Amino acid sequence: MDLLFEDTGYFDLTTYGLRIGDKKGVMSFSPKAEIVLCGADEVEKILKKLNIKHTFFKNNGDRVMAKETILECKGDAASLHKAWKISQNIFEYMSGIATYTNTLIKSAKAINPSISVSTTRKNFPGAKELMLKAVMCGGGAPHRLGLYDSVLIFEQHLNFFNAKEELEQGFKELKHNFIERKIAVEVESFEQASYFASLGADILQCEKMDFKTLKSCVGLKQKHPTLLLSATGGINEKNIAGFAACGVDFIVTSSPYHAKPLDIKVTIKETN
Amino acid sequence: MDLLFEDTGYFDLTTYGLRIGDKKGVMSFSPKAEIVLCGADEVEKILKKLNIKHTFFKNNGDRVMAKETILECKGDAASLHKAWKISQNIFEYMSGIATYTNTLIKSAKAINPSISVSTTRKNFPGAKELMLKAVMCGGGAPHRLGLYDSVLIFEQHLNFFNAKEELEQGFKELKHNFIERKIAVEVESFEQASYFASLGADILQCEKMDFKTLKSCVGLKQKHPTLLLSATGGINEKNIAGFAACGVDFIVTSSPYHAKPLDIKVTIKETN
Amino acid sequence: MDLLFEDTGYFDLTTYGLRIGDKKGVMSFSPKAEIVLCGADEVEKILKKLNIKHTFFKNNGDRVMAKETILECKGDAASLHKAWKISQNIFEYMSGIATYTNTLIKSAKAINPSISVSTTRKNFPGAKELMLKAVMCGGGAPHRLGLYDSVLIFEQHLNFFNAKEELEQGFKELKHNFIERKIAVEVESFEQASYFASLGADILQCEKMDFKTLKSCVGLKQKHPTLLLSATGGINEKNIAGFAACGVDFIVTSSPYHAKPLDIKVTIKETN
Amino acid sequence: MDLLFEDTGYFDLTTYGLRIGDKKGVMSFSPKAEIVLCGADEVEKILKKLNIKHTFFKNNGDRVMAKETILECKGDAASLHKAWKISQNIFEYMSGIATYTNTLIKSAKAINPSISVSTTRKNFPGAKELMLKAVMCGGGAPHRLGLYDSVLIFEQHLNFFNAKEELEQGFKELKHNFIERKIAVEVESFEQASYFASLGADILQCEKMDFKTLKSCVGLKQKHPTLLLSATGGINEKNIAGFAACGVDFIVTSSPYHAKPLDIKVTIKETN
Amino acid sequence: MDLLFEDTGYFDLTTYGLRIGDKKGVMSFSPKAEIVLCGADEVEKILKKLNIKHTFFKNNGDRVMAKETILECKGDAASLHKAWKISQNIFEYMSGIATYTNTLIKSAKAINPSISVSTTRKNFPGAKELMLKAVMCGGGAPHRLGLYDSVLIFEQHLNFFNAKEELEQGFKELKHNFIERKIAVEVESFEQASYFASLGADILQCEKMDFKTLKSCVGLKQKHPTLLLSATGGINEKNIAGFAACGVDFIVTSSPYHAKPLDIKVTIKETN
Amino acid sequence: MDLLFEDTGYFDLTTYGLRIGDKKGVMSFSPKAEIVLCGADEVEKILKKLNIKHTFFKNNGDRVMAKETILECKGDAASLHKAWKISQNIFEYMSGIATYTNTLIKSAKAINPSISVSTTRKNFPGAKELMLKAVMCGGGAPHRLGLYDSVLIFEQHLNFFNAKEELEQGFKELKHNFIERKIAVEVESFEQASYFASLGADILQCEKMDFKTLKSCVGLKQKHPTLLLSATGGINEKNIAGFAACGVDFIVTSSPYHAKPLDIKVTIKETN
Repeated sequence: MDLLFEDTGYFDLTTYGLRIGDKKGVMSFSPKAEIVLCGADEVEKILKKLNIKHTFFKNNGDRVMAKETILECKGDAASLHKAWKISQNIFEYMSGIATYTNTLIKSAKAINPSISVSTTRKNFPGAKELMLKAVMCGGGAPHRLGLYDSVLIFEQHLNFFNAKEELEQGFKELKHNFIERKIAVEVESFEQASYFASLGADILQCEKMDFKTLKSCVGLKQKHPTLLLSATGGINEKNIAGFAACGVDFIVTSSPYHAKPLDIKVTIKETN
Repeated sequence: MDLLFEDTGYFDLTTYGLRIGDKKGVMSFSPKAEIVLCGADEVEKILKKLNIKHTFFKNNGDRVMAKETILECKGDAASLHKAWKISQNIFEYMSGIATYTNTLIKSAKAINPSISVSTTRKNFPGAKELMLKAVMCGGGAPHRLGLYDSVLIFEQHLNFFNAKEELEQGFKELKHNFIERKIAVEVESFEQASYFASLGADILQCEKMDFKTLKSCVGLKQKHPTLLLSATGGINEKNIAGFAACGVDFIVTSSPYHAKPLDIKVTIKETN
Repeated sequence: MDLLFEDTGYFDLTTYGLRIGDKKGVMSFSPKAEIVLCGADEVEKILKKLNIKHTFFKNNGDRVMAKETILECKGDAASLHKAWKISQNIFEYMSGIATYTNTLIKSAKAINPSISVSTTRKNFPGAKELMLKAVMCGGGAPHRLGLYDSVLIFEQHLNFFNAKEELEQGFKELKHNFIERKIAVEVESFEQASYFASLGADILQCEKMDFKTLKSCVGLKQKHPTLLLSATGGINEKNIAGFAACGVDFIVTSSPYHAKPLDIKVTIKETN
Repeated sequence: MDLLFEDTGYFDLTTYGLRIGDKKGVMSFSPKAEIVLCGADEVEKILKKLNIKHTFFKNNGDRVMAKETILECKGDAASLHKAWKISQNIFEYMSGIATYTNTLIKSAKAINPSISVSTTRKNFPGAKELMLKAVMCGGGAPHRLGLYDSVLIFEQHLNFFNAKEELEQGFKELKHNFIERKIAVEVESFEQASYFASLGADILQCEKMDFKTLKSCVGLKQKHPTLLLSATGGINEKNIAGFAACGVDFIVTSSPYHAKPLDIKVTIKETN
Repeated sequence: MDLLFEDTGYFDLTTYGLRIGDKKGVMSFSPKAEIVLCGADEVEKILKKLNIKHTFFKNNGDRVMAKETILECKGDAASLHKAWKISQNIFEYMSGIATYTNTLIKSAKAINPSISVSTTRKNFPGAKELMLKAVMCGGGAPHRLGLYDSVLIFEQHLNFFNAKEELEQGFKELKHNFIERKIAVEVESFEQASYFASLGADILQCEKMDFKTLKSCVGLKQKHPTLLLSATGGINEKNIAGFAACGVDFIVTSSPYHAKPLDIKVTIKETN
Repeated sequence: MDLLFEDTGYFDLTTYGLRIGDKKGVMSFSPKAEIVLCGADEVEKILKKLNIKHTFFKNNGDRVMAKETILECKGDAASLHKAWKISQNIFEYMSGIATYTNTLIKSAKAINPSISVSTTRKNFPGAKELMLKAVMCGGGAPHRLGLYDSVLIFEQHLNFFNAKEELEQGFKELKHNFIERKIAVEVESFEQASYFASLGADILQCEKMDFKTLKSCVGLKQKHPTLLLSATGGINEKNIAGFAACGVDFIVTSSPYHAKPLDIKVTIKETN
């Protein structure tokens, strides 16, 4: 769905009914508290579509202080009112995700400077593009876009193998088929981790492990020096440091997708 | 964007690579804790598109207890794996919103049984359809879909009027133009509220008022018996009761849109 | 369907075959008789897409006299010929609706200056956006966009209630659920009208009533001072005055959607 | 735009609010007066999308008498109410066009049994598919879908030629380039007609000629036995016979696109 | 699918990861060997969408020599890298088709200067628009866009007629229904050709005939002076001259759709 | 673009005009020579949309012998004729790619059984989904879907680095940012290959190297045991064995995208 149309639909009843559409105005956006900005591309597209003149003072990824101006727009009241709320909404949600992601990363890197933070494919259905862009603005990386770009074995796959030999044959074929991609496996115990490391998994995604088990898994790197390990399952800004301290190479989390939108103040004034 | 395609894209590398796609399996969904269910229509569409046989044991709006089965699906592993995560995601996010909305409503009605709860148009950009459906599954109502379906005057409109007479003329035209719709005004003080009530506003949306001011505004109903009042601005499950106690007719909030997804457990097993 | 693509498709065989595509030309649009203009936004989008330089001399909603120039365009023959007929078509159909709507309103207001005129949701399937825009350019208002923006009870709803109590309970819940919207009921007799007025309907839509019955219904306003009444069913430019004279607050009609397109003359000439 | 979504949008407030959505009902469609039916394919798609059981008693192109049943549907009230108005609308508009086209054809064939009737590309913008289908259901043929499927020279093309030789060279190239298509020219006088017939035009589209001139043009067939002639410009059910009597091979008109929708009565009743 | 999005998706990992996105650069395109250029419109759309400044030195249909510059672009590395490969791809594939078509035409015209070359509707599924445009850039013409724009009878139609009279009645109705279009029939023998010529076919499409049979069919023009004949079935750059020599009016082939893309060299350099 | 609509558009003139649409028929598909089948999913969707009963005798990936039946369909002539050519086209193009890919793989594996074959992102613009599916049906793997799913450094990236230190810093950041993905570099000489292997590249894509250089590059595996090497640039069925013999881990080629469609014979007969 076109974002502008979603909010404005066929017309803006209020502005039309008040007969103010032809008056000229200026609209400006600034955050109420410090944010990492995201959404500038999407807002720019909307402003262009509405023929609104605009100047961006901040870019995607910039840290913007409270009350600093992000963007100033000039146009007629009809166009400004169409652009207003959807633009505000884009900035608030996307900056919310970017800022939260950035906080996660800072917490994790305070413990382990070489760790990285990735997000899952569990975005709000239909919102992947905007949510992933915001994660990247905040310094995160996409872990997996979907079924098509990466290989990740879950228990729900393993349940289709009845015998070890069959599984090991399947695993071997998988590795061979997708030689250009790293093979990841979600594991829930040290035994599983150790088994898949020995089969040649490139990445072990350690799901909901306690810190002790997680550290044992990290210990597998001694025997498997190219093995990568991630922690996943309920990781957020409160507990990320603990996971980082276990020595994993990266953190996988969905929590940025649920970050609260951050307030952006929008003023619209008449000009002469 | 097609929800299924967003997650699966061109193909499922893992299931294909493991050579398990043709095996037969059964997949079932159940919540980890009590939820108000939403998402059944969207999941059903996905299952049909993938030719997966399925039985729903629960419907949209149903209260589902922990471990109760929502849905059971039968098909080949290739189809089940394509349907899995996007279906889970739809249930988790939409039920999260429905359940949270329902909690809000129960809190508000405990204080004032005739109050209703509506959500704003500040949904995640592009996610209006799913988010609104979830709000309604939880018992809420849409307050305003966008600029096209309702009339709501903000300060950002008032700034285009230089004189009281001009504003009052505009207000009169607006009422006349959209006689079939109620005219709402967002107000921030008792003075504003009183002024617009006297102009003939049908609804006063009281933005971020303290309880004392809000109650004074509600007092305007004595003079204006058909006047409706709503409270808005930062209302959530913690503070909704306080607003309800002020005597407003309805609550307007965006908080359900940020509700956390609720865990749905998905098992996939091979069948013979 | 993209309007330009609908008419031009993959290419313009005639202009291509005649080898005139690179020649420069000027194209201008003017009405054959007085019109209320509509379609300028849609035509502008097409001209931009084709990189055609253009100047609009008239805007949406303007009354344009016969032979006055609406728009002048400069570009190569290939682009002008692609833009020509679809632009003409947009102007002719949308101005036809706008002009007809305007005539209806003038007829109605000559009798009752405070009456307003709205159109139904019975637009040509798929043409709602353009048709509604044209109605608004002519001074009309949308009565109802669809099932999602307003509440209107028909006999087809009432048939699902077996007992009066059940209906009255449903009506009460409906009012409570959608407190921000006016509740409208389509009625066909004075008895029905009186009954629903007493239940608390905000609007009675009087369907195909004779003038006497309609006037009796309007009489209900004495007892129900906030009640609004509309007339609907076969209302057009010939009979609207009679309905207006009955004292209804607004008229609801589909007739503007069937208004004939109004001739717009398009000249294309070569320039040097 | 999806036709069903255009009318129902995110939800049906009225049916939801009255709490009748789960009741079972039957819905049937019948015309108020005799029609040539069109719209069955589009309505069927909507019914399938809504999982509504249905039986068609009449097909596209059938002549349906007043009160005969076209279609009967069974389902829950929520689905029936979603399908109702858009289905009715599709039948009314498309059958209106089909029936009117059929009337035109009968009038023309009464005078000249071998004449055929075609419609222009001046359909309502965006409505080409539905309008053309309705024309064909009524027995008409598409004259020209757009710029891409046929060759038709207008004065607006000729204005790009400064000398006769240049034009004749262009005409020759055009014929050669599109050897599989008939070359048509719109002419406004006998002289033009005679000139283009001698250049080798396959079809002369005689625009707004008086009957005398038109007959002279038809006389060109004696010298050019494969030449086809059509009449166009303001032809409708009142004047078509006169044009047919002039001896043209076919009639080209836009009038079916403006045909009034024909009333279809829809009843919805509860079932047990 | 949007061509740019198909290749770039949500983001460009490599350019982002290398942190070079903000650097300024220049990108230029030139063919490795002589080509007939096609793709300029599509590439221009992509460059505009990415706000890349650009100058085209060559246009669609131009013959471009090895190492000549087609296009030069300036922008930041992030945008240039997004535009690069899809633009190169568009030029390579479309110019491949245009150049090949042009070669076919030259071979055919060397034998018969008045022959023309058309392509079938057997393009790669979903690629009709780009493929047809490329054919026209190379000097070819579309023979048939699809089922909707032209009339062509195959054996697969004839199989639905059980008797000659029935077929002849059907043929007559077809001609009458679509009087503005030439009626084509695919034939495989002289007998079939002769039969359909006598029924009044406008075009005989001679499928996979040996040259002797083909010449006999061409001989039918003596008796049927307005009859057109085409050859089709496996015609390519190696054998087209032979078919042209048989005297057909035009050649119908799918071979341009399988033309190999032609190498376009793309350089991207940093600028200061 | 919807594949069915692309070919059939608004209607099928020929079948309609011949008045055979309501007759019943059977349609069957079989290859003229042995193929690896692809396209079954897309054809099935079309048949379902047209309500055509059908039985598939062969599946995607099956080796089908000449004259074996792939698919049999039953329905009315109108539907069969709509489905015919687009279905044939899908089978012919997709099976052409699948079969060619399979031939490549067999040639390569005859030399080196553990080698794999991947295709580039240089598909026909807009045809990625169908082309990739066909490659996988033939046993190939996608090398890179686009910029979003994998990391591949080209000379066009390196040109944005002015100093070795800067490049090495960029490379390090890239590896760290996308720890879950293998880092590939396109190299054109042994020196480049050796340099990037020592920087930690996971994959070296050896572009247009002679066999001697390629073998030297493969020799880098001794020092870098986890290094993977691919050969790319002009690889096809004639020369693939030579590249395979050099010891690379996989081959990257675009040649399957240009594979010729393979003939599928379609018969349509009337049934009683």
